[in-house]
Amino acid sequence: MSNLRFNLQKVDGQARLGILSTAHGDISTPAFMPVGTAGTVKAMTPEAVAQTGAQIILGNTYHLMLRPGADRVEHFGGLHKFMNWPGPILTDSGGFQVMSLKGLRKMSENGVVFKSHIDGSSHNLTPEYSMQIQHKLDSNITMALDECTPYPATEKEAETSMQRSMRWAKRSKDAFFPRDGYGLFGIVQGGVYSELRRESVEELKGISFDGYAVGGLAVGEGQKVMFQVLEDTIPHLPYNRPRYLMGVGKPSDLVGAVMRGIDMFDCVLPTRSGRTDQAFSRMGQLNMRNARHKNDTRPIDDECTCYTCQKYTRGYIHHLGLCKEILGSTLLSWHNLHYYQDLMRGIRVAISQGLLSAFADAFAAGQATGDIDPI
Amino acid sequence: MSNLRFNLQKVDGQARLGILSTAHGDISTPAFMPVGTAGTVKAMTPEAVAQTGAQIILGNTYHLMLRPGADRVEHFGGLHKFMNWPGPILTDSGGFQVMSLKGLRKMSENGVVFKSHIDGSSHNLTPEYSMQIQHKLDSNITMALDECTPYPATEKEAETSMQRSMRWAKRSKDAFFPRDGYGLFGIVQGGVYSELRRESVEELKGISFDGYAVGGLAVGEGQKVMFQVLEDTIPHLPYNRPRYLMGVGKPSDLVGAVMRGIDMFDCVLPTRSGRTDQAFSRMGQLNMRNARHKNDTRPIDDECTCYTCQKYTRGYIHHLGLCKEILGSTLLSWHNLHYYQDLMRGIRVAISQGLLSAFADAFAAGQATGDIDPI
Repeated sequence: MSNLRFNLQKVDGQARLGILSTAHGDISTPAFMPVGTAGTVKAMTPEAVAQTGAQIILGNTYHLMLRPGADRVEHFGGLHKFMNWPGPILTDSGGFQVMSLKGLRKMSENGVVFKSHIDGSSHNLTPEYSMQIQHKLDSNITMALDECTPYPATEKEAETSMQRSMRWAKRSKDAFFPRDGYGLFGIVQGGVYSELRRESVEELKGISFDGYAVGGLAVGEGQKVMFQVLEDTIPHLPYNRPRYLMGVGKPSDLVGAVMRGIDMFDCVLPTRSGRTDQAFSRMGQLNMRNARHKNDTRPIDDECTCYTCQKYTRGYIHHLGLCKEILGSTLLSWHNLHYYQDLMRGIRVAISQGLLSAFADAFAAGQATGDIDPI
Repeated sequence: MSNLRFNLQKVDGQARLGILSTAHGDISTPAFMPVGTAGTVKAMTPEAVAQTGAQIILGNTYHLMLRPGADRVEHFGGLHKFMNWPGPILTDSGGFQVMSLKGLRKMSENGVVFKSHIDGSSHNLTPEYSMQIQHKLDSNITMALDECTPYPATEKEAETSMQRSMRWAKRSKDAFFPRDGYGLFGIVQGGVYSELRRESVEELKGISFDGYAVGGLAVGEGQKVMFQVLEDTIPHLPYNRPRYLMGVGKPSDLVGAVMRGIDMFDCVLPTRSGRTDQAFSRMGQLNMRNARHKNDTRPIDDECTCYTCQKYTRGYIHHLGLCKEILGSTLLSWHNLHYYQDLMRGIRVAISQGLLSAFADAFAAGQATGDIDPI
């Protein structure tokens, strides 16, 4: 009996329609999780995030443990209360960010000793400590600590790294405090090597988790290789548990990964792009800095129902971008998050009708014909 | 017959309660106008600005004429439509910003030739051109072009400057295109010299405007001198026309100026302070960066009804400030604008009850006792 109910309602090929239930509410899957790194989805109020249709957000353990610190978040009643997001929250383990601190960290079997990028203070991130921190954050979905295998890696390197991640997965499970409506996800590693991915899946199944993430992708291998890894990996995962593709991705990545059986995603792309004047649309990506928008009285997308498209022209958004006005970041983050949630809504409706393949074709055709700015 | 109706409802000493009616709606006075420099009240959506109680905002002609340009704003249907602010808008003349471009401008009787701080392009701001630009912006309240007298200035310098401003006021009036629900304000100059201020008032009354602004204050002369100038000037202004104190100010400036007969204000202080982690409160000003707030689970002001105080703790706002998160700027701008509008609401209620003097005493006592951070 898991601590997180996952109710699969419909399948369409490998794609699945489901509802994941947490102590802070339900999530319709396939789901996209906006990233709220430091206790805020950048440039957005939580109400605006919810208005886009997001039902769950992601918090970064690395950032939160350093500032404001897990004890302080706990003092404020957990991350939901601290940041005014009453819905479900997933936190990563901190591993990914710590590994990327090249000169500032030291790996061992025990964990990662690293220096804070903020004040140089020393920290020791172990599987047990990551579980403690995520518990204090009151995360609904806790991620096991893993070692994110570098890319490229030889098969031997990928194997050694994956095996350490599996030992850390076991330690994460042992240190996790199970509660109703809260769960722990394991993370499949193994680089681009099918056999290693499969071995990792079997290890994780032996430990048993509330959900299974695919990690170590979208690190430079390209969409084709990523999809191949998903095809080699996902069929071996437990059918009745949610599957989460970490840190992915572009809209076309989401469509393709859902078709290969993924239920959950997170990515900074919609918000980061919004802060650099990029807009997603059904036809492709627009660079709102492009001078061709300056006199354009149309919204970004005249079929979009988001706040930004209901109220503002391309010309105005172009102007805000040139002036580096904060409202420009807000309006584009809002639109982009809405675009991502709209895409997930479309995917869910298509699955419910058994029409995902047709949806994917129409999506690809729109993206291929479009109104795309060279960036 | 003026183009802007101004209905005085009640007086309390020199203070007045009124309603100023424009083509885009009514404004309850005394009123505070948030500043939307480049077509956006920084870090705020227009809906959030309206939610604080603001009924009119100010746009800067200098910024808008350079970017996106008056013709482009006109192409988008005027500033109201361009920026999604359906309510009244006042624009300044551009003079104040242009005068501050020390090395980049050349004054003459005709106007000011200056180079854009953005692209170095050359422009010639004359009274006639300022009227044209503000017309294209569709400003409800157009300001005459004046020369902002430097501070300090000798009496002779202040006189020469004031007299040029009066000639420009006449040219502004001649070039203004009158329409119902739109008006033109003249600007009293004369530095700190009572006789010059009075001479300026008489000149402007001779030309006749829809409202009268007091300019050239809050430039370093201090509150006491500013109040003295108001006392020497305001009694000579037409009783039945709105009076606007430009670029002012601190909360205590507003209370004191209303008591001396001012009806309208604008200032960047609430929004600029919000972007630098300063919060206004009934007790004084808080520096949200101060470490003493880090564990504080209280709102900025537990009697404040703004969005920020309803949803967020001091500790969270402190955290956002340390992380330089955009949401911190938004939440503090929101709170500060709400604080300013609350102050104006309190002033209006007090005038309606004939109790402004008691209100001012209570206000000063609160500010004097308080919860103030050293900054």
